[in-house]
Amino acid sequence: MYEGAVQELIDELGRLPGVGPKSAQRLAFHILEADGDDMKRLVNAITTVKERVKFCAICGNVAEQETCGICRDTRRDPSMICVVEESKDVIAVERTRSFRGRYHVLGGAINPIAGVGPDQLRIRELLNRLTDEQIKEIIIATDPNLEGEATATYLVRMLKTIGIPVTRLASGLPVGGDLEYADEVTLGRAFEGRRSMS
Amino acid sequence: MYEGAVQELIDELGRLPGVGPKSAQRLAFHILEADGDDMKRLVNAITTVKERVKFCAICGNVAEQETCGICRDTRRDPSMICVVEESKDVIAVERTRSFRGRYHVLGGAINPIAGVGPDQLRIRELLNRLTDEQIKEIIIATDPNLEGEATATYLVRMLKTIGIPVTRLASGLPVGGDLEYADEVTLGRAFEGRRSMS
Repeated sequence: MYEGAVQELIDELGRLPGVGPKSAQRLAFHILEADGDDMKRLVNAITTVKERVKFCAICGNVAEQETCGICRDTRRDPSMICVVEESKDVIAVERTRSFRGRYHVLGGAINPIAGVGPDQLRIRELLNRLTDEQIKEIIIATDPNLEGEATATYLVRMLKTIGIPVTRLASGLPVGGDLEYADEVTLGRAFEGRRSMS
Repeated sequence: MYEGAVQELIDELGRLPGVGPKSAQRLAFHILEADGDDMKRLVNAITTVKERVKFCAICGNVAEQETCGICRDTRRDPSMICVVEESKDVIAVERTRSFRGRYHVLGGAINPIAGVGPDQLRIRELLNRLTDEQIKEIIIATDPNLEGEATATYLVRMLKTIGIPVTRLASGLPVGGDLEYADEVTLGRAFEGRRSMS
């Protein structure tokens, strides 16, 4: 055990996700020995995010204003909504430059074990958008894992009754990957989703 | 790219050691979504460490006062000094409960490639202690790697001229380890340092 303040810092750092006891100790000593101005910038960055960053009132993405940059951008196509789990996924899709519509961030995926049901996600907000906005297509881009699939299935079933076309991102072999290393579920999906080349 | 404040936080977190771009993003979103009070405690812990924690005037260990808890502890044997590279090593040795003397923290190890020579380490401070204090044994506990060994060799050579007994922690097979998985240098050391059982 270290003397008070150092141990307290190690404890606080150890509460962060993915930071084990060893990393917490290493980070604490880095902070201890680091330049004071660098650490002031870190502290300011944390404080600013907590004070200033909110979630977009329309799509739930991170935003420094009432709405996020994408929802405010009039050049984006308002008739397409891409539904994702987290704000991080918005960035991932934006990086592809293949989508010019808007987003809806659910804030997670259905996970009964963790106690996350449809009511804990921003699904009601999505439904409200469908009545207010002119939507032509909803693209479901939840993660290709158990929770993401469950969420996608739930959304598809719910949206079908409203009559708006719903699509889901393709599953298959990752580009640049090796067929022999693909797991059987992915390879199975790649077969199911095979496309005509002729 | 995220909007200003979030991206700034990701950048600052990414400057911490062992935090790559993905971890920085994950940490930033954790901070964003975390309870405000938890984050205040983290910020306070960082600020407190930067403001209050200093290095012990005697041994160089972390300390909240002029000297550290170990140097102030009168029950510790002042005639033995265990020389380590970092404050972290003090904790590691303390955990063994097999040493009741005092420490001297060098602040690193000799590493010519990184530009760390004897002058960058707290070696002069160690020599000063030898003239002031009644020392019967110096135990060198630098890391068992290239830099630690170089530092140990340097210290042994220097301390020999002063005539104080110097010892070095034993190298050998780690307890609970597997002989067949030991690297050849460790196994070689274990042979060199073999002890009579009869």
